[in-house]
Amino acid sequence: MGFEEQPDAPARVTFAGNVRRVRKEQHITQETLAERSGLHRTFVSSVERGERNISVDNMERVAHALRTTVAILVTPLP
Amino acid sequence: MGFEEQPDAPARVTFAGNVRRVRKEQHITQETLAERSGLHRTFVSSVERGERNISVDNMERVAHALRTTVAILVTPLP
Repeated sequence: MGFEEQPDAPARVTFAGNVRRVRKEQHITQETLAERSGLHRTFVSSVERGERNISVDNMERVAHALRTTVAILVTPLP
Repeated sequence: MGFEEQPDAPARVTFAGNVRRVRKEQHITQETLAERSGLHRTFVSSVERGERNISVDNMERVAHALRTTVAILVTPLP
């Protein structure tokens, strides 16, 4: 990715899609993810839609609740 | 990493260290990084010290200014 190019998908969008996918793979609801991460259910919902400019510490909470890492959740699927 | 364990280093700290390292590898100043990313120099400085709960969109700006990705910048060095 060169300096002047735009990345294929912003990290916000990649994170959103990965959180939703991993959560569903683990068969847990947004409400359960919210409870585990200490965030509000509507916040989790908006994060999964890519509507929130989530902070790194809250990304960490979500990743931890999904038993994974922020690095994995911002990495696009191959 | 299990559900109850804490990760070795929070994403915020990993990001901070990687930004500083990559910036120095590229021989650019905090001021140049700030200009390229459209952020304030003191903001970049505090991000590199791990003092800021930076948002994903600002992480993207920093990554783009360093010609890399958020995924790479939140991945701990092996």
